[in-house]
Amino acid sequence: MAGKGLLLKADPIADTFRDEVKTALDRTTRKPRLVGILATSSAPSKFYAEFTKKQCEDLGFDFVLKRTGAAFSEEAGEGEGVEEAIIEANEDPNVDGIMVYYPIFGPQQVVSPYKDVEGLHFKFHYNLYHNIRFLEPESLLKSGLPTAVAVIEGENPPPGTVKSILPCTPLAIVKCLEHIGVYNKILPYGDRAYGRTVTVINRSEVVGRPLAALLANDGARVFSEYTKRPQVNGQSDAARKYHPHHVVHPSNNTLQECLAISDVVISAVPSASYKVATDWLKDGCICVNVAADKNFEKNVRDKASMYIPAVGKVTILMLLRNLLRLQQYKTNV
Amino acid sequence: MAGKGLLLKADPIADTFRDEVKTALDRTTRKPRLVGILATSSAPSKFYAEFTKKQCEDLGFDFVLKRTGAAFSEEAGEGEGVEEAIIEANEDPNVDGIMVYYPIFGPQQVVSPYKDVEGLHFKFHYNLYHNIRFLEPESLLKSGLPTAVAVIEGENPPPGTVKSILPCTPLAIVKCLEHIGVYNKILPYGDRAYGRTVTVINRSEVVGRPLAALLANDGARVFSEYTKRPQVNGQSDAARKYHPHHVVHPSNNTLQECLAISDVVISAVPSASYKVATDWLKDGCICVNVAADKNFEKNVRDKASMYIPAVGKVTILMLLRNLLRLQQYKTNV
Repeated sequence: MAGKGLLLKADPIADTFRDEVKTALDRTTRKPRLVGILATSSAPSKFYAEFTKKQCEDLGFDFVLKRTGAAFSEEAGEGEGVEEAIIEANEDPNVDGIMVYYPIFGPQQVVSPYKDVEGLHFKFHYNLYHNIRFLEPESLLKSGLPTAVAVIEGENPPPGTVKSILPCTPLAIVKCLEHIGVYNKILPYGDRAYGRTVTVINRSEVVGRPLAALLANDGARVFSEYTKRPQVNGQSDAARKYHPHHVVHPSNNTLQECLAISDVVISAVPSASYKVATDWLKDGCICVNVAADKNFEKNVRDKASMYIPAVGKVTILMLLRNLLRLQQYKTNV
Repeated sequence: MAGKGLLLKADPIADTFRDEVKTALDRTTRKPRLVGILATSSAPSKFYAEFTKKQCEDLGFDFVLKRTGAAFSEEAGEGEGVEEAIIEANEDPNVDGIMVYYPIFGPQQVVSPYKDVEGLHFKFHYNLYHNIRFLEPESLLKSGLPTAVAVIEGENPPPGTVKSILPCTPLAIVKCLEHIGVYNKILPYGDRAYGRTVTVINRSEVVGRPLAALLANDGARVFSEYTKRPQVNGQSDAARKYHPHHVVHPSNNTLQECLAISDVVISAVPSASYKVATDWLKDGCICVNVAADKNFEKNVRDKASMYIPAVGKVTILMLLRNLLRLQQYKTNV
C-alpha cells in the first residue's frame, strides 16, 4: 500500500523461537509438564488458558489445567483454592512449570522459583529491576535477596550461573523489537536499545513495569504512561555498565509530548475504547499493540513505519522457553 | 570502554564492497582504466589523487594520472587545461572512467556520462534530485532531460534499464548507515530510512546536497546545515511511492535545535577548527565525520552510541564500483 507503514504479524518472529523450542524439547529426557491453574470465571483468562493448552500440545508439551475457585464451581469465589493448587503442583516432581490464570499478583509468590515460568518470583523480579541477568541456580533454594552475581559481560551466563527468568509478555515485546531492528546488534549486548525513545502505555506489574525496566536495562529512554503523568524509567545504577547517565527522572511530559519524540510506542490498555491518537505519533515511529483490544486507531500506519498488531504468538514461546530452562536449572542443582 | 559509544572504523564496511568489486573485476574482459586529472597544486587534491592511484593498483585497476595546469607547471594557472584533458580522455576508447581533482563543479560537465565515475553528469544529477533510480543506458547518448524511467519497485533495475550513477562520497555514507542499521531492512526498498532524523552539516554540490537528497529519497527527515539556517530536505514528489508527506519545508530550527532531535549527525566541514558541540547531540545518536579534519569533539562518544571517524575507504570502493558499472553500460549500448 503506497504511503502506509508495514503491517507486521508476529508469526515470522514466533517461527524463529518455535524452532529453538522444538530443538530444546527434542533434547529433554522427559516431556516437560506445565500446570495451568484457572481460578476465575473471567473470559480472557479462560481464553488464554485454552490458547496455552493448544499451543503446548501442538508443540509436544504436556499441559494440565487445574480448575479451582470460580472456574471449578459456581458456589466458589474468584481465586479460591489457588494457593493450595500451587502448593500441590510445587510438590509434584512431575510438574516443571506453573502458570496462574488469575489477574492478581499476590498468589504467584507461592510458586516455587524452579517452576515459575512467568518470571514473577521475587528473586527474578529483583534481578530484573536491578539489571542482574544471571544467577546461581542453587541460590533459588535460599531465602533472602539474590547475591549480586553478574555484571553484564555478554549474552552468555558466566560459569556456574544461568539466565534469570523474565516475564513472558515483556520479553516477547523485546524479542519483537530485536527482530525488527529497534535493538541494534552492532552495539554491545546490554546497550542495544541505546538512543531509542520508547513510550509504554501500561504500568501493570506483569506488562508495563517490567517492560519499561527491560528496555531501560538495554539503554532505551522509556516513558511509562498509564492514566497519570508519564514517568521516565532509566536503568538502575546497579550493574549498569554502558551508559550510566540514563538514570530515573520524573518527567513533566504529557502523553502527547512523549509520543511526539518516541521512536517506539507500545500500548497494552485493556479497553476497547482506548485509542492512541495517530495525530500524536512521531512520523515513522514503530507501534506495538499488546492489548486484546486494538489500542491504535485504524489509520495508525499513516504515521507508523511499522505496526505489530499482536504479540501473543511470541509470548507463548517465551513461556515454553522458560519452562525448558527451568527444567534444566533443576537438574543442575 | 564503559559508558562510551562505539568507535567504528570503516574497514569492515569497505571489506564487503572490496569483495564485490574484486568479483566483478574478475569477470571483466579488459582491465578497467581510470584517468585522474589533476589540475591544481592544492595538497588535499594531490593527496586524494595518490590515494586513488594506490587503491586502484592494489585492487588490480589501471590508473593513469594526468597533470595539467598548476599541477603540471608553476607557470600555469589552477585548472588550466582541464577541459582539453577531459575531452582527450572522453575520446580514448581505452579509458573507462574519468575523475577530476579540481574543487570546482563546472568542468565535470564535459566528462562523458559513460565515463563519469563521480556521478556528476547532469543526467545522473537530475535523477538523484528527482528520486529516479534507473535509466536506459542509450538515453545517456541523447541530449535533454532523462525520460522518466522508473518508479521505485525494488532494488533491481527493470528490464532495459541500469542503475543511475551516484556520487561516491554521499553513497559511501549511505552504505555506512545501511551497514550499522540506520537503514531498516524490514522496510521496503526506497523507504528504509523512514522515521530517522538526520542532520547533514555541509551543503556542497559533491557531498552535502546530494547526501541530503539520497537520505530524503529513502524516507529520512533531513536537516541540511551550512552556515546559514538549516533547511529541511524532503523527497521530491516525483517517483515518491511510500510516504509522500515528507515534502520540502523551510525550517526555522537552529543547528542546536536540529541536533537535539537528530538520530544521525554527518559533518563534512573542511576546517580544523570547526567542531560539533557534543553537548548539543541527542543522547545515543550516531555521528559520522566525513571531513579530512575531525569535526567532532574528542568526547563525542560520551553522547553518541556510535562514531564513524572516516568513510574514505568506502568512498574509493564506490568509485571503483561505478567504474565497473560504466564499463558494463557502454558494452550494452
